[in-house]
Amino acid sequence: MSVEEFELIDRIRLRSALRDDVILSIGDDAAVVQVPAGKQLVIATDTINRGIHFPDNTAPADVGWKVLAVNLSDLAAMGAVPAWCTLSLSLPQGDLAWVDAFLDGFFELATASRIALVGGDTTRGSLSVSVTVLGLVEPGRALRRAGARVGDDVWVTGTLGDAAGALAQWRAGAVVDPALRRRLDRPTPRLAVAAGIAGIAHACIDVSDGLLADLRHVCDASQVGAEVDLPALPVSPALAAAFEGARRQALQATVGDDYELCFTAPPSARAAIARVAQEAATPITCVGRIVAGAGVRALHADGSEWETPALGFVHFA
Amino acid sequence: MSVEEFELIDRIRLRSALRDDVILSIGDDAAVVQVPAGKQLVIATDTINRGIHFPDNTAPADVGWKVLAVNLSDLAAMGAVPAWCTLSLSLPQGDLAWVDAFLDGFFELATASRIALVGGDTTRGSLSVSVTVLGLVEPGRALRRAGARVGDDVWVTGTLGDAAGALAQWRAGAVVDPALRRRLDRPTPRLAVAAGIAGIAHACIDVSDGLLADLRHVCDASQVGAEVDLPALPVSPALAAAFEGARRQALQATVGDDYELCFTAPPSARAAIARVAQEAATPITCVGRIVAGAGVRALHADGSEWETPALGFVHFA
Repeated sequence: MSVEEFELIDRIRLRSALRDDVILSIGDDAAVVQVPAGKQLVIATDTINRGIHFPDNTAPADVGWKVLAVNLSDLAAMGAVPAWCTLSLSLPQGDLAWVDAFLDGFFELATASRIALVGGDTTRGSLSVSVTVLGLVEPGRALRRAGARVGDDVWVTGTLGDAAGALAQWRAGAVVDPALRRRLDRPTPRLAVAAGIAGIAHACIDVSDGLLADLRHVCDASQVGAEVDLPALPVSPALAAAFEGARRQALQATVGDDYELCFTAPPSARAAIARVAQEAATPITCVGRIVAGAGVRALHADGSEWETPALGFVHFA
Repeated sequence: MSVEEFELIDRIRLRSALRDDVILSIGDDAAVVQVPAGKQLVIATDTINRGIHFPDNTAPADVGWKVLAVNLSDLAAMGAVPAWCTLSLSLPQGDLAWVDAFLDGFFELATASRIALVGGDTTRGSLSVSVTVLGLVEPGRALRRAGARVGDDVWVTGTLGDAAGALAQWRAGAVVDPALRRRLDRPTPRLAVAAGIAGIAHACIDVSDGLLADLRHVCDASQVGAEVDLPALPVSPALAAAFEGARRQALQATVGDDYELCFTAPPSARAAIARVAQEAATPITCVGRIVAGAGVRALHADGSEWETPALGFVHFA
């Protein structure tokens, strides 16, 4: 460990907020936490690399926010409540100003999400940030991908395609709409919705690879099929102003990075879902249904099937 | 997520062993595990990067072993029993043969240590591997750095300086002794010793930065000083054959990467520690004592103080 690494770790330690259930935090060989009796532990990990998962010109505070957000989104997709996390930071050189700004974004979201940073390490290398998050869930209440049933509604939170729109503008060398760019840089993990649907939804996933690809994962795991109504996909004013027609549809249906939740629930849950949307102050839109069979069909307004391009997240680089 | 990434994840999933307490493993948005009632959770994370933490010519199986070993060593230093882990793998391109060999080493140690891989991700980027390990400990029994008391003996497991010797030979362009190289590539986390000393030791750390530097961390955290008897440092036959005198001493005392444990315990525990050494089939050697004051003094056979060079791990690159 270099002197430089000690300085970095001290900077991180000084800013890490504590929870009552953290018995030993940053500064020993490992952290010790107390898992509440009767809860199950939910574990997710995600790494983001410069040039692969975020554009080179991304502000360090946004990198800090985003790496935590994509991890919290995985907890949300399980219906779990965030508790603790670790952070591994690889940096080409010890740029303390960069780290401070990174930590601004990281701890802004950590504080809002009541998650405590309890450990991690810093290493020299290409810019790469890896986070592991630990969350808590009532036994048997974790939202899995398997569990969708024929007749379920398919729901999505928020709006789709905004991050994809920002990437498309950026790739084209166009002016990037700030509202779209903010959705790319600062995705909102849908933790409040997750808490509300934990006893309601049959299956859930977060939309990181694109709605059709991610819903396909749910269908495969649940051994069912799905139909998605393309005109129903929720669109933000910024995206509607910037893209239209088939282009917008493709951004909304086949590109990820919005980190919205997609879940299925029985039609009997519609009123309850409306209440969750209101309490979480987050739109939740019904975009299709679970059907017998396999695979995902995307349908136009006239019921004809959209011949979709290759599904799944294409790394922007 | 690319098709390539799916293939990688499938390869990893097929080889991940399960434990009865894993409720949901690789393949959903997150894993779910059952923490046994009455245990505390211990969390550590460590990243290793090619060219920084291991030479470019390191065999992929050794990279897989080592990244898990350095993490398990942190659990050992806390007196914790391994339970679950996650793996983040950044690779320049999807080299499936490399991944298979990497997994050979990773799972060889995972199986031996009864730790289940429950999640992770693969990304494109410079070769970098990040692991988070979760372990279990009886409440209040975690071995901390703080806790050393004046009058304690200072103990180390195994032998010191072997990994440093391999690095020194490699840097000099000399033939690297295979026994030393193996200690660099395949460090043994001292989990069996850790289990034995959990109720005996006052403080513990793993030797990753070098004995004097790591013992200094223990002293700082415990607000005590320490004296180390340089002639007492345990030496392997391979290191003794390759290096002598002050050069060997420096390798043993000031370079890390052996991942032995250094712990303190009262003299009344000597017989118990001898039994732990026998049961764990691992030498445990008394190398000094905790004294009043601050800092670490390294002493020659005649009691004179060694003027040590700058302490702490110097990254080999």
